[in-house]
Amino acid sequence: MNLTLAIVFSIIISLGAFALAGWLYQWIKSQESNNPKIKTISDLIKSGANTFLRKEYIILAKFAFVAAILILLFLPKPIWNQPDFSTVLSNNIAMMFAYIFGTVFSGMAGKIGIFVATIANKKTAEAATRGIGPSFLNGFRGGAVMGMAVVGSSLLGVALFFWITKNPTMLLGFSFGASSLALFAKAGGGIFTKTADISADLVGKVELGIPEDDPRNPAVIADNVGDNVGDVAGMGADLFDSHVASLAAAIVMATSIDSAMGSNNVELVFVFAALGLLSSIFGVVFAKMGKKENPTTALNLSTYITTGIFAVLTALATIIFNYEWRLYLVTVIGLFVGVIIGITTDYFTNDTKKPVRQVAKASESGPALTIISGTSYGFLSVLPAMVGIAVSAFVAFKIAEPLGEGYALFGISIAAVGMLSIVGMIISNDAYGPIVDNARGLAEMGGLGEDVIRITDQLDSAGNTVKAVTKGFAIGAAGLTVISLLAAFVSEVNDAAIELSLPLIEGFDILHPSVFFGLLIGAAVPAVFSSLLMLGVTKNAERMVAEIHRQFDEIPGLKEGKEGVFPESDKCIVIATEGALHELIFAGTFAIVITIIVGFVGGVYAIGGYLAGNIVSGVLLALYMSNSGGLWDNSKKYIEAGNHGGKGSEAHKAAVVGDTVGDPFKDTAGPSINTQITVVSLIASLFAILFLTSSLF
Amino acid sequence: MNLTLAIVFSIIISLGAFALAGWLYQWIKSQESNNPKIKTISDLIKSGANTFLRKEYIILAKFAFVAAILILLFLPKPIWNQPDFSTVLSNNIAMMFAYIFGTVFSGMAGKIGIFVATIANKKTAEAATRGIGPSFLNGFRGGAVMGMAVVGSSLLGVALFFWITKNPTMLLGFSFGASSLALFAKAGGGIFTKTADISADLVGKVELGIPEDDPRNPAVIADNVGDNVGDVAGMGADLFDSHVASLAAAIVMATSIDSAMGSNNVELVFVFAALGLLSSIFGVVFAKMGKKENPTTALNLSTYITTGIFAVLTALATIIFNYEWRLYLVTVIGLFVGVIIGITTDYFTNDTKKPVRQVAKASESGPALTIISGTSYGFLSVLPAMVGIAVSAFVAFKIAEPLGEGYALFGISIAAVGMLSIVGMIISNDAYGPIVDNARGLAEMGGLGEDVIRITDQLDSAGNTVKAVTKGFAIGAAGLTVISLLAAFVSEVNDAAIELSLPLIEGFDILHPSVFFGLLIGAAVPAVFSSLLMLGVTKNAERMVAEIHRQFDEIPGLKEGKEGVFPESDKCIVIATEGALHELIFAGTFAIVITIIVGFVGGVYAIGGYLAGNIVSGVLLALYMSNSGGLWDNSKKYIEAGNHGGKGSEAHKAAVVGDTVGDPFKDTAGPSINTQITVVSLIASLFAILFLTSSLF
Repeated sequence: MNLTLAIVFSIIISLGAFALAGWLYQWIKSQESNNPKIKTISDLIKSGANTFLRKEYIILAKFAFVAAILILLFLPKPIWNQPDFSTVLSNNIAMMFAYIFGTVFSGMAGKIGIFVATIANKKTAEAATRGIGPSFLNGFRGGAVMGMAVVGSSLLGVALFFWITKNPTMLLGFSFGASSLALFAKAGGGIFTKTADISADLVGKVELGIPEDDPRNPAVIADNVGDNVGDVAGMGADLFDSHVASLAAAIVMATSIDSAMGSNNVELVFVFAALGLLSSIFGVVFAKMGKKENPTTALNLSTYITTGIFAVLTALATIIFNYEWRLYLVTVIGLFVGVIIGITTDYFTNDTKKPVRQVAKASESGPALTIISGTSYGFLSVLPAMVGIAVSAFVAFKIAEPLGEGYALFGISIAAVGMLSIVGMIISNDAYGPIVDNARGLAEMGGLGEDVIRITDQLDSAGNTVKAVTKGFAIGAAGLTVISLLAAFVSEVNDAAIELSLPLIEGFDILHPSVFFGLLIGAAVPAVFSSLLMLGVTKNAERMVAEIHRQFDEIPGLKEGKEGVFPESDKCIVIATEGALHELIFAGTFAIVITIIVGFVGGVYAIGGYLAGNIVSGVLLALYMSNSGGLWDNSKKYIEAGNHGGKGSEAHKAAVVGDTVGDPFKDTAGPSINTQITVVSLIASLFAILFLTSSLF
Repeated sequence: MNLTLAIVFSIIISLGAFALAGWLYQWIKSQESNNPKIKTISDLIKSGANTFLRKEYIILAKFAFVAAILILLFLPKPIWNQPDFSTVLSNNIAMMFAYIFGTVFSGMAGKIGIFVATIANKKTAEAATRGIGPSFLNGFRGGAVMGMAVVGSSLLGVALFFWITKNPTMLLGFSFGASSLALFAKAGGGIFTKTADISADLVGKVELGIPEDDPRNPAVIADNVGDNVGDVAGMGADLFDSHVASLAAAIVMATSIDSAMGSNNVELVFVFAALGLLSSIFGVVFAKMGKKENPTTALNLSTYITTGIFAVLTALATIIFNYEWRLYLVTVIGLFVGVIIGITTDYFTNDTKKPVRQVAKASESGPALTIISGTSYGFLSVLPAMVGIAVSAFVAFKIAEPLGEGYALFGISIAAVGMLSIVGMIISNDAYGPIVDNARGLAEMGGLGEDVIRITDQLDSAGNTVKAVTKGFAIGAAGLTVISLLAAFVSEVNDAAIELSLPLIEGFDILHPSVFFGLLIGAAVPAVFSSLLMLGVTKNAERMVAEIHRQFDEIPGLKEGKEGVFPESDKCIVIATEGALHELIFAGTFAIVITIIVGFVGGVYAIGGYLAGNIVSGVLLALYMSNSGGLWDNSKKYIEAGNHGGKGSEAHKAAVVGDTVGDPFKDTAGPSINTQITVVSLIASLFAILFLTSSLF
């Protein structure tokens, strides 16, 4: 095979993924749904989600416009004062388009996901009247549309852009477009969803003691909208971003090796990425729930099958196209470590294991011990994943090193590609969660009866369990990806240094004062970023709680559930939307601006340390927050299943507090950090030349 | 001046500090105290504290014995297989003694502190019947005995050992002895104090609604014992350890510069350290509360006066002894950055500022928002301190660099010495806290009346505010100290490398796979270490809560407060003691063993990355936990002062949950991390030769 063929192959597989997504969409649309009450509510959710998305995209379009102008002026080189003005200009124009397409592809994938998810939710709810099997299939296939759309557009975008420009730096621009959008989408969606979720719970479950999705609660529709904009669109943007970034970093390094040694590593990256998507396609097509299976097993099985297919296909490709076995090994190790990180993460959030049970037990002594013990297990949970990332980076480096100059760091990036190869499947499983969560709400609000609610509950619980695995996976992959972005940054800096006849960067010595300076500041950023997001949630939740109180006080008959009396759900949606949009700009801009300041003050050495500090503290906090959040959620569910006094007991009240604290941890701050570290790494690479030439120290 | 004179001068000032401590002790002892009820309770607290300390020291003596044997066999070099057996043996014996004396000096300082604190508490309580001024003076002078004893023994130990051995590596052994004891003392004391505090609050305040120090509550005595063993002895051990480590690191680097350039930097370190202690002596002697002052102002004023005196004295010394002005500048910058870090920390925990008020307001919507908003501000609070550490390290490096080879890193270590110069004053202020806290309990249990309780409350609240400042200071100082320990590690490794004709370490490049491997693992350790401590607290608190329930159920008349019915306080003390001793060994050993494993697996490069990761994540988590804990505590106090519904309101209940969560954050895990990073850094330096010669990779 040659490079062009590999790119064409990638494009064909991407189009195949789109075709599958189209077919799945048609299948879902063809499913029965005739309950008018459900249709009404589902339409409300859909229009709420679309309203939020439209407003969000308008703001993001403005941001992207400003960023595009700045890119045109500055990146990869400032357009003025250059001897080769026309080359620089055309490069900057290409970079600007790369950036814009990155944002558009990412936004599109999110939009498609929401579009299908808001249909699939009602189909899943109604299918539950026919049994758990059909209901599962609706939820899963709805999620799979998102999975296929995200990975299809990611691979398609990367392949097209590289084919046209032949310049890997442009891919960094494309990737930056994707991640700057993801940063805002994840942060905004995360704030929206948790504002609504917390407010609905605080007033509904805690104060009034009414059920989770009670239609009297004005925040319930907003909560369901939040599942879509936060968990579907935001999460899709997040993994889109990781996938693109891993490919971009690998291709940057592969190009520089290939041009030095005449090797075919770029080709290998495309072939392996395409085979990963192909494996996910197989996994999606064959996924279904056997008669005797439970939904968790079905979801996990589909992941394992995809993993196995990928390992076989890439082995065949290695034989046929005569690739290096060492690179195959590194890829597969990356993938397996990803799966292992997922499984260990599962230990901390699975209700059959010790941590969840201990936290449930501690809840008997009140909410303080729920929080302390959950925090403790959250801190403990970072160890296996961080060791996993450390070991896989180390092993990848050592295995690839003997292949020659540059291969060692390329090894890390190809391990990241391996870990993210089955991301199509991961997204399918992850988007399944909010769909069945919504379906549960619709079943309750649509009055489908206890049996149906129980089925959707079962599906929902599987969604939560699998989410722990996919989140561990996502964080692990982001960790490896940004390590390889760090390597890509060095490669960019040194290309520039050669051109400008400046001394090359040999490495980032921790004892160098600028590196250490950067390390400390970089480590503080994820904490501050999370802080801003969570403060946004608190601020908005206070506002929304006041609004819910007002409605219950002022709308006659609402509290009693009088026939024909509806809450003013739209007011809650407006509060969540406006609050989220306000906060996301501030938090996102903070992360971007502080990186640029550190770069201009401390130069490339400070940025090297900054990235390293950002990665370690980002991975640490993301794992801590995601896992403790998942753990609290499942402890609450475990108590609700009748343990330690069951629903309504003191232990349950304490567990609800834990769950509420965990909400912004696991769905707002934790996953947004992933995106934050990627964005920051890409900024470093893109600004490499400017930081090299125009820093204060 | 010459070096010997400087050492003698240090010894004289140390002895002066001891003399002052003795005088203060006599003064406190001479104060009136005749209330028999208070005497009884105070004796109970004293005997509880002594019981714990005795049991703890027995276990630690066993640990130290094993460690001493291992040091004899292995450190600084393995005794077998060496050509110069007798030199190695005598060095190892010296190192073993250095280690043992480190543990003994540290333990002694803790013991003296407890001894005085358990007398000062009752004197402070009774002095409050005569007014706030005398009561303040009792509390402050009680704390000052601890301050003088700790810094006196630290400086005395370092000076004596260096005088005798002339070998700075021995100081690392002395420092290791101090910090391994501190690690266990801080962890054990922290678990003890918070087990008792949380259990007393959970049953007393939350369940039964009885006041804080109600004598019916079986855990109240244990809680007061905990203040002494955790906050007095543990904190003293912690700052003893930081002070010794900062001196040891500075002297290691100064020696290597002096021997190369014939300069007098070791002399300067001793002179400056002695002047710091002298300034603290002045500060302590002149501290008192003016007629119109409040206690917070009095405490802060004494810190500022000490800082000013130190700046003047060191300037004079620089003129007289012709020291480098650049080193003076670095010292003073270190000190001022320490004060600034303290002040910014204060912003996040002061009840007149936004964070505390916002968290109090959020508490109206229930405990979940208390936790989320407090966590958010806790995360935010890391930024100023981390920037402060980063800037002071960077500036110190740059200012000292022009002085010649080796001065740049020495600059960082002398900034740490500067920051820790006034530590005698800091400890005095810090130990004041638990003494007045105890006094408040004694006033309540001894029935001294509302007026007296109000006075002790006022003193207690000042203690909490000042504690925020001193903790910020302690973390900042530990951060700078371990950076200089990292530099000391390189110096040790390279000395060994020269001797063994191995290649020198040029630095720790983040892109080196072993360094990055170490960075990730090192960053995970403080999280896991905190987790183990907090799980220890949860586990023990559950046990103690059950015991309190049992006593209220089974002892007739206890709940009703019948005359002559006493709770079985000793049972609670036993639970806290046994639990704490069990958990401290596990957590402490974990931190030590994982460091040694990383060193033997990954070698010196992995350890370099490991230390850097450990420092940044350790500083981050320590700041987060200390500050959010202080913030919750003061939010609760702010509500209790009558805001947002005051005592008994829903907001108050939520704030109590926050306070309880904050307890192990700020008094167990947060400050223990300080010690953990120091211990780990010292292990790295001490094992330098072994890691260099016997690692797997």
